[in-house]
Amino acid sequence: MKLDMLVTEGIGASHADPVLDDAGLRGAIAADKTAVVSIAGDGIGPEIMAAARRVIDAAYPFIDWQEHDAGAEVFAGGIASGVPADTIDAIAEAGLALKAPLETPVGHGGKSANVTLRKLFELYGNIRPARTLPGVPSRYADPGVDLVIVRENVEDLYAGIEHMQTPDVAQCLKLVTRQGSEKIARLAFAQARAEGRGQVHCATKANILKLTEGLFKSTFEEVAAAHPDIQARHILVDNCAHQLVLAPEAFDVIVTTNMNGDILSDLAAGLVGGLGFAASANIGDRVAMFEAVHGTAPDIAGQGVANPTALILSGAMLLRHIGAAAAADAVEQALYDVLEEGRYVTADIAGRHPPASTADFAAAITDRLDPVPDAAWSSPAGGPVWTGPAPAVRRDPRREFDGLDVFVEWHGPVDELASRLKAASTATRFELAMISNRGTMVYPDNRGIADTVDHWRCRFVYRGVESTDLQSAICHLLARVSRVCSWMHVERLQRFDGRPAYTLAQGQA
Amino acid sequence: MKLDMLVTEGIGASHADPVLDDAGLRGAIAADKTAVVSIAGDGIGPEIMAAARRVIDAAYPFIDWQEHDAGAEVFAGGIASGVPADTIDAIAEAGLALKAPLETPVGHGGKSANVTLRKLFELYGNIRPARTLPGVPSRYADPGVDLVIVRENVEDLYAGIEHMQTPDVAQCLKLVTRQGSEKIARLAFAQARAEGRGQVHCATKANILKLTEGLFKSTFEEVAAAHPDIQARHILVDNCAHQLVLAPEAFDVIVTTNMNGDILSDLAAGLVGGLGFAASANIGDRVAMFEAVHGTAPDIAGQGVANPTALILSGAMLLRHIGAAAAADAVEQALYDVLEEGRYVTADIAGRHPPASTADFAAAITDRLDPVPDAAWSSPAGGPVWTGPAPAVRRDPRREFDGLDVFVEWHGPVDELASRLKAASTATRFELAMISNRGTMVYPDNRGIADTVDHWRCRFVYRGVESTDLQSAICHLLARVSRVCSWMHVERLQRFDGRPAYTLAQGQA
Repeated sequence: MKLDMLVTEGIGASHADPVLDDAGLRGAIAADKTAVVSIAGDGIGPEIMAAARRVIDAAYPFIDWQEHDAGAEVFAGGIASGVPADTIDAIAEAGLALKAPLETPVGHGGKSANVTLRKLFELYGNIRPARTLPGVPSRYADPGVDLVIVRENVEDLYAGIEHMQTPDVAQCLKLVTRQGSEKIARLAFAQARAEGRGQVHCATKANILKLTEGLFKSTFEEVAAAHPDIQARHILVDNCAHQLVLAPEAFDVIVTTNMNGDILSDLAAGLVGGLGFAASANIGDRVAMFEAVHGTAPDIAGQGVANPTALILSGAMLLRHIGAAAAADAVEQALYDVLEEGRYVTADIAGRHPPASTADFAAAITDRLDPVPDAAWSSPAGGPVWTGPAPAVRRDPRREFDGLDVFVEWHGPVDELASRLKAASTATRFELAMISNRGTMVYPDNRGIADTVDHWRCRFVYRGVESTDLQSAICHLLARVSRVCSWMHVERLQRFDGRPAYTLAQGQA
Repeated sequence: MKLDMLVTEGIGASHADPVLDDAGLRGAIAADKTAVVSIAGDGIGPEIMAAARRVIDAAYPFIDWQEHDAGAEVFAGGIASGVPADTIDAIAEAGLALKAPLETPVGHGGKSANVTLRKLFELYGNIRPARTLPGVPSRYADPGVDLVIVRENVEDLYAGIEHMQTPDVAQCLKLVTRQGSEKIARLAFAQARAEGRGQVHCATKANILKLTEGLFKSTFEEVAAAHPDIQARHILVDNCAHQLVLAPEAFDVIVTTNMNGDILSDLAAGLVGGLGFAASANIGDRVAMFEAVHGTAPDIAGQGVANPTALILSGAMLLRHIGAAAAADAVEQALYDVLEEGRYVTADIAGRHPPASTADFAAAITDRLDPVPDAAWSSPAGGPVWTGPAPAVRRDPRREFDGLDVFVEWHGPVDELASRLKAASTATRFELAMISNRGTMVYPDNRGIADTVDHWRCRFVYRGVESTDLQSAICHLLARVSRVCSWMHVERLQRFDGRPAYTLAQGQA
């Protein structure tokens, strides 16, 4: 049984490892091992984590793995976040983690331990490479895919701020900030530079969402100006999805907002074999967490047959992140060699060969590792991706107050609402200028086609003078409005440096 | 010159058309021709419209085309919407339109005439088939793609309600309504039934956006219960993108919200050759508009070389919509035959044959039309897709008032903000319960990791009794808050039938 021999005898014994032979160098560096929290996770997690660590340790024996828990058993133990305090502390201390998939059990409040970790450490950048792998079936093997999606990971719709406006109308806030956009744009260019890539696409819907996606786009363009050596391009996100399917080879790095990036990154994984092969990094200012994108695969857990490719590739990202670029290259190359040969791969891609176990697959990779040159462990080649916080520049434009958008519940015809609101606001410092329903103006110009819902945005223009007690004027209006109908949401209409900081309704001149 | 002969002599003369031979039947139906507004559009529009109408008329000579303008020349003439009143009136009267691509010129306010038409007539349903076409290069030719995306077309982020919250924080409202969700779900099942499809997938992000995408999902499930003959399934939208790339043959009909549908439908078009081949229907309660998805292709305009496939397929959707299913089938079959043979196709797909002109391509299709059985023009087979308005059911749950989310601008540390707000609200009927920044709780439990921006959501819990003058209590709080910092956005925290109508912050128990 050749494979068994590989497993029991091969590792660390039969194949030459120049480092293990160089006791002096090894001792010198080992004293300064890099601490990395290892979270074995649920389902197939422990098996693929063992495989990944075996491969990583063989290429770079200077990681001090610190094993900690998260996931199903932690939930079962009554910790609602799925992440115990000692795990959190360990990650905060080490600043690095390699994580296998975690289960989000039903009936524990539905919070995902994955999301908890991302939020807790402000892991604002989700890096998702999509690269054609030899031996993994894909319609895109020729000419092959080699791109990276850099997804903003903290804000956008994922801020999760939702309010039912009426019993029938739900609202979620899509928040895009200059600070968040700048950080992710800087990360995208840093990633491009570290990987020697010449182009970054920014994918947005700025043609429709001019303030939110528009802020992301304009901030990207500002950051791009500081990277003249890298070509910066904007692409509409719908067209980006279209082009990714037609000609993914045209892309290098794609940076995008959270929700759109969620879709694009899973699309891109599909181009190269699916989520089962997708590695990822979650980058923060102080912590970086590397993880396989796929799930816990409970149906095959404990059988030793799971494919550890995604976690091994995540481990290679970790190595590159800490500056061990040559070791990362060696891991990837050995993995590619084994995948390409196809003789010692797991059942999911075994093809005509008998399937190998998870451990045998890992052993085959380890056996294939090229001797790593001494410089590997301190090489900055490829460079760590770590941009640090963006400089805080407080903008303080001249501000003016244009009025209020008051969102109300109303079940009658719009004309009646308008006439009542006009009457109610007569004595106030505001004048009803417009009513829209789901964004389409229905007053004063009502074409009568809109299929309205019971949620109306009533725009009141301010007619007072600057010196007025604004707060009293607003309260006066709200009190008068509430005699007509119930309001549930108020937005101040601001003007910054003379420019309106709000959009017009569809149909409004 | 065989093609020239086809064009000059072939149409309506050389090939048998049983209808044209049946003068009596023709006269009877012609008196009752169906009026359809034809908008030739910009760029290649006039050429592909001529081609499409030639094919449609040959299969179904009972359309009364009414030619109207929209687009570039209209913008240039000073009409900001790009759509003149007589075009609007004609569409409203006919209820049907076939539209070639329109240009959205720069410098006319940036409004899209396409969007104007969709909003004006509440075309809530965007139907985008993606079907493998013979002779059109695609990585997905085997086993082939045949699915339909049904995209909600009116609400969601496309309501376009945006406000700058601070100079550095932009907000867009994602609005999802029960009414809008119900209409699009009904349309999806009607579409499935009309096309004899057995399955509808609802693609959402309901696991994260529990109120908005959750409302879309739960409404879909209610509508699905009324269609037990069609299998209804939910799929997460990111996984949907992933599966569409891996195994699109698994899908029949996919219904989804506006922004996600924008991405998925362009993705799906990429699976079958790209937007150049993508047909669409925009369905409203009273108007249906059919259009090619692609642009005006100004680089080849006027040369007679554009591929009219997308507009011809849109015309077939129009025919099916008005009940002329057999004629629609005949058009599609003739188109497929010509594409498959590849001898008379336009330059973009001509391969080894000399390219045909737009007109010659259309002539070849017309020449290939099978004699359509007499019943074609009144056949309900396939059925029109027209669900009509959903029944309005007003829900009126018991309401309680839980408090307010007040969004403020603040540039200092959160602890200082919290202590000042606590002091300021002491005399009010509210108590500061939580502060979050970009959705993550930073008070009372501040882990100190969050990279905060200057936009804070301050949640105040109401401690008053039901009988209090709520309006005064709210104004009192807002006045006190405004002494600490500037607020720009207020959300009422409502409870419907005892259930909170708002989400908790990440990290909040």
